[in-house]
Amino acid sequence: MSNKSPRIAVDAMGGDYGLSEIVPGAVKAAQRGIPVTLVGDEFMIRSELEKLDTGSCDIDVVHASQVVTMEDKPSDALRRKKDSSIQAACRLVKDGKADGVVSAGNSGATVACGMFVIGRIKGVLRPGMAGILPTEKSPMVLVDVGANVDSKPEHLFQFGLMADVLAKDVLGVENPRVGLLTIGEEEGKGNTLVRTTYEMLRKSSLNFVGNIEGRDIFTGDVDVAVCDGFVGNVALKLSEGLAKSLGSLLKGELKRDIVSKIGAMLAMKAFKRFSRLVDKSEYGGAPVLGLNGIVLVCHGKADARAIEKAIEMASRFVENDAVSHVKEGLAEHSTMTVPDACTRE
Amino acid sequence: MSNKSPRIAVDAMGGDYGLSEIVPGAVKAAQRGIPVTLVGDEFMIRSELEKLDTGSCDIDVVHASQVVTMEDKPSDALRRKKDSSIQAACRLVKDGKADGVVSAGNSGATVACGMFVIGRIKGVLRPGMAGILPTEKSPMVLVDVGANVDSKPEHLFQFGLMADVLAKDVLGVENPRVGLLTIGEEEGKGNTLVRTTYEMLRKSSLNFVGNIEGRDIFTGDVDVAVCDGFVGNVALKLSEGLAKSLGSLLKGELKRDIVSKIGAMLAMKAFKRFSRLVDKSEYGGAPVLGLNGIVLVCHGKADARAIEKAIEMASRFVENDAVSHVKEGLAEHSTMTVPDACTRE
Repeated sequence: MSNKSPRIAVDAMGGDYGLSEIVPGAVKAAQRGIPVTLVGDEFMIRSELEKLDTGSCDIDVVHASQVVTMEDKPSDALRRKKDSSIQAACRLVKDGKADGVVSAGNSGATVACGMFVIGRIKGVLRPGMAGILPTEKSPMVLVDVGANVDSKPEHLFQFGLMADVLAKDVLGVENPRVGLLTIGEEEGKGNTLVRTTYEMLRKSSLNFVGNIEGRDIFTGDVDVAVCDGFVGNVALKLSEGLAKSLGSLLKGELKRDIVSKIGAMLAMKAFKRFSRLVDKSEYGGAPVLGLNGIVLVCHGKADARAIEKAIEMASRFVENDAVSHVKEGLAEHSTMTVPDACTRE
Repeated sequence: MSNKSPRIAVDAMGGDYGLSEIVPGAVKAAQRGIPVTLVGDEFMIRSELEKLDTGSCDIDVVHASQVVTMEDKPSDALRRKKDSSIQAACRLVKDGKADGVVSAGNSGATVACGMFVIGRIKGVLRPGMAGILPTEKSPMVLVDVGANVDSKPEHLFQFGLMADVLAKDVLGVENPRVGLLTIGEEEGKGNTLVRTTYEMLRKSSLNFVGNIEGRDIFTGDVDVAVCDGFVGNVALKLSEGLAKSLGSLLKGELKRDIVSKIGAMLAMKAFKRFSRLVDKSEYGGAPVLGLNGIVLVCHGKADARAIEKAIEMASRFVENDAVSHVKEGLAEHSTMTVPDACTRE
């Protein structure tokens, strides 16, 4: 590791809100001392930058002529849009001109570019995407949240190893408690995939606390929950949807009588503190684990604050040398990732 | 169908709170005109009944000498506890002495007793458990919520057919919108299981609205969401856990300053209305679909109100002749449930 701060390449063209949220978010991160390279339409980026106070910030701009849309298939984004902002950003990491990538664009395309341009860490079977969720205590990592479907036990096992590093290096948890998400806490419960993964996690050097259920995610009693990408993606989006729906239902009820309305106004401070606690933008984005560099996928609806937080998280990931730690974890368990028992059904 | 009200057999011994919640819940339902048979330790049941106003209620008591614990395996509950309250309750349905069963006990054992004592409807490959969830609009059905793991497309397809009947006959939805829970709304997204199921649902006579994501569950835009039991169970328990955690976080914030505290007190009415909206006891329990009679599994923490609601729901299920409608749905699609394309991976 060099002593200078990691440089983060930011895909300026992704996200539902476009440059008007991404550029200010990147500038905020740069103001806090993180070198940033904005990648995308140079003219548009410079127009946004002119509106902001970029004083002594270390901000580069790299032009890219294409944009991956939300409708593009990952394979098309890879092959037909070689000069897209997301692919160009990944190339900066590949070429040693940046240390990490943040994008709020098409997540499938971002994962694909990360995989094929930056490349996998040797020994990683499949990269996994980690969601960082608020809990009653401190944030936790849910992995995989959708980089893969139809995973095998050895994939889930590696997701656990990599998320353990994330919890340590980025969330600052000393000895992360790793749980396996299933449908019954007893050993032996769950589907075929889970039962084999259980054995692998149990034999590892991880602080494996056993099976956990859906209801244990938000209590804050584990730091990492491992599941396959289908389950994780449903869980992540369901949580988002439920929090939103509960919010609108509560708001509706608070407006229905005048006394409640006054009560709600008085309690506004508490509601704001509460929103901050559960605000997903606090946790920036979903790191793609298993690549030779950090790629962070932000929510399509990421605002400036979410982008800023994601850049900070990517920077912390690089600074704490998480890629090396993932390599160490894989090396330690290398005999376990091709076990006899790992054929599914 | 006869004209007299359906009689519901209630397992008096299940549930975390025991007879002191279950018996009052059953009496409430009986007071509303539903004939009830309480099954379990006769002495204990009669002691509870003595405390309550059972005036003109139609309440029977059937003695059962054994109790299935939460630790019992379904197979053991079936074989070694033949005189358990849950098995005895199912036998009443089998023998035509009751029309449905409600239990807040061991859900695996309840499903097993339903399957082997009451029996499956001819043509049903696997019974599915349906969760009924509150949404921003009206309640919806999530199926399967854990009766099975490692399901096949034809199972998921049948869950959809049966949940469609449930939405019609119990929730009163005229033309239920059926969605397939996956990780990307586009056709072709998701895992192998989902892609094959999609085709089957598309070809059926159901009002299939296509793929939905986790975030669409609580908006109320579908009436039925189909998924495999692993995903459904994680989703159900996660929702429960998240709602609870959000509640305690908000409560904590509302207590942190005096003005918010006063505000919260003024808004108490709205909070109460809100709690009722999202209270799971409003929806009673999870019906097991595909049996020759209705078996409703209540939450272990079901209180008297949840038991009462579950008995009402079971009664409505029988009164509206849902079993016949499931049979009709299966017959209509009988050529589809053993399709060539249904081998998984």
